[in-house]
Amino acid sequence: MKAIITRSRRLRGTPFTSRIEKQGVKSYTVYNHMLLPTTFSSPEEEYNHLKKYVQVWDVSVQREIEISGKDSFQLVQLMTCRNLSSSKDGVCYYAPLVDSNGGLINDPLIYRLSEKRWRVCIADSDVLLFAKGIASAKSLDVKIFEAQIDTLAIQGPNSPKIMEKIFGDKINQLKFFRFDFFNFNKNKFLISRSGFSKQGGFEVHVDDVKAGLDLYDHLFEIGNDFNLKPGAPNHPERIEGGLLSYGSDMDINDNPFECGFDKYIDIESDIVFLGKDNLIKIKKDGIKRKLMGVKIESKSINVSEEIPMISSEDQVIGHLRSGAFSPKFKKIVGIAMIKKEFWKQPQKFNIKLNNNFVLGEICNLPIE
Amino acid sequence: MKAIITRSRRLRGTPFTSRIEKQGVKSYTVYNHMLLPTTFSSPEEEYNHLKKYVQVWDVSVQREIEISGKDSFQLVQLMTCRNLSSSKDGVCYYAPLVDSNGGLINDPLIYRLSEKRWRVCIADSDVLLFAKGIASAKSLDVKIFEAQIDTLAIQGPNSPKIMEKIFGDKINQLKFFRFDFFNFNKNKFLISRSGFSKQGGFEVHVDDVKAGLDLYDHLFEIGNDFNLKPGAPNHPERIEGGLLSYGSDMDINDNPFECGFDKYIDIESDIVFLGKDNLIKIKKDGIKRKLMGVKIESKSINVSEEIPMISSEDQVIGHLRSGAFSPKFKKIVGIAMIKKEFWKQPQKFNIKLNNNFVLGEICNLPIE
Repeated sequence: MKAIITRSRRLRGTPFTSRIEKQGVKSYTVYNHMLLPTTFSSPEEEYNHLKKYVQVWDVSVQREIEISGKDSFQLVQLMTCRNLSSSKDGVCYYAPLVDSNGGLINDPLIYRLSEKRWRVCIADSDVLLFAKGIASAKSLDVKIFEAQIDTLAIQGPNSPKIMEKIFGDKINQLKFFRFDFFNFNKNKFLISRSGFSKQGGFEVHVDDVKAGLDLYDHLFEIGNDFNLKPGAPNHPERIEGGLLSYGSDMDINDNPFECGFDKYIDIESDIVFLGKDNLIKIKKDGIKRKLMGVKIESKSINVSEEIPMISSEDQVIGHLRSGAFSPKFKKIVGIAMIKKEFWKQPQKFNIKLNNNFVLGEICNLPIE
Repeated sequence: MKAIITRSRRLRGTPFTSRIEKQGVKSYTVYNHMLLPTTFSSPEEEYNHLKKYVQVWDVSVQREIEISGKDSFQLVQLMTCRNLSSSKDGVCYYAPLVDSNGGLINDPLIYRLSEKRWRVCIADSDVLLFAKGIASAKSLDVKIFEAQIDTLAIQGPNSPKIMEKIFGDKINQLKFFRFDFFNFNKNKFLISRSGFSKQGGFEVHVDDVKAGLDLYDHLFEIGNDFNLKPGAPNHPERIEGGLLSYGSDMDINDNPFECGFDKYIDIESDIVFLGKDNLIKIKKDGIKRKLMGVKIESKSINVSEEIPMISSEDQVIGHLRSGAFSPKFKKIVGIAMIKKEFWKQPQKFNIKLNNNFVLGEICNLPIE
């Protein structure tokens, strides 16, 4: 499909969009009502570059819902099955949000700025409205708003070097899923060691547009020494790494056990969250399906809806939800929801792509 | 911008997408995580055609949140400032949804199927999560889900004729904002007299994909006699008509008084809804700005963020939020949030478009 995107105030760009257009962005997706660049050259070229060097991604679409006030911890805990009772300032918590049925609402990274101030850094769904619904129904003493923050991800093996050049060597003492404040040009940035790749990196949370644009330009001024390029979350890289995409791999009809989030679910302690009763029941009954990896003998794929996977006995073993050509395996890698009867490997299947049946097999996540 | 859209399961098409692509769709926007076609030829050609003949629009993006069960009326009323206490089955209610601050969450058409079964037909925000948040926090006895309904709008002066040909003359007894069930090919469709244009028309709510595709194909089989074409909500037509677009013209930072929704706000009776206290206060204090129409002496515009409007005394009188070239007025028409000091007409202003200042003036909505 070559149809283009019609812009409006409802479908906004980011402070970096005009620069990205000059840098030759080829395609976008839309995420949290905003533009997310998807390719500048090709997913394969960008895959190889990301694994060797360093990229800057405009991931401003990762909107940050700030929740502050006396009851802010109570509200944040109500929304997630992850136990945050011994959480600490300066730490990012990957936390499935669940509705009262135990269905997934989102899978944000929750930043604890203080016990009374949190930022929920969201995937693609309006978590703001979920939080507002709960807070107003319970008359909680909280302030909830979408923060004016636009995020740049610096990802790839050269990211520590370029970040050290800009922010000093203190930046490399930052551990994974920790955040702190660092200065460039007298401007202070909240920076976390995080990002939607397995190649290591940082996310710079820009709360001042001018300062963010100066940083963006500086990155590309000094970038040549590090082979820095503009990029975007890379589909084959994130699939191989088992990094799940809300809305594609999982949605409100899936529960966190089915998505492999067991270590982020606490149904044993006395914490209070909305879907707890149902998650207890789901755990007791046992899940009937789960997300797994797949490899498929094909070179190209476009998954825009679930695609059934068929066993040699003509049974549907599950549904493919994401897929991309892997330069590493020279075939398609994907993420699929697989029925319990078919979890045991080796399990082969047939799948219809571009009107032809091709062969695939299931595997574990991450895909190795 | 000529960048194309990257599809995924997270950004889904509709049952009609493959047909629309064959019919030569040129551009899309994204709305409620789905594709909404925006043009097939040009907005001007489609404007003229829509006002003379009839068009079929794939507006499946108008997702329908179904709320049923014992407490469903209580939940629906909690979400809106419109008094639904004497609502009737078979009627569609245009109803601003507000948060506890009185900020706009969405402006759906609410369909009452029965006292215990409602469909909230939404603009572009995840109302499902707002409803789920309230319901689970209050332990309401309701079932809430996004219904598997994809909507075709039949809009334009020839719509009664083609609809009568297909569904019989009973369809034309249906009054504005009423709905009922009608048969075609032994399939039953919920049809409302409604749609996002001022040219009259119907919306067919398809709950069976096969039946919907048969209807779509039949419309184009017999369409020649009525000069039927594929189309989309038309930007200049809806702006002239004063039909507001949530996310573009208004958002969570605006209250319903500022958007001219006074007749849909009941703060006098004893109904219970979330933002009531704040709306009472806002009414008492009086609003400081409101949405109005504008005309601008230019032929082209692209509004992807608010654009300030400047008086001859260099004061910001307001911000333009939507705009499009009007074939009727041969200039830009738009919708803007205007400060109270500048409501009185004539009020001229300057606005920077494509790096040049051009002249405009404010007017009432609809724009005549």
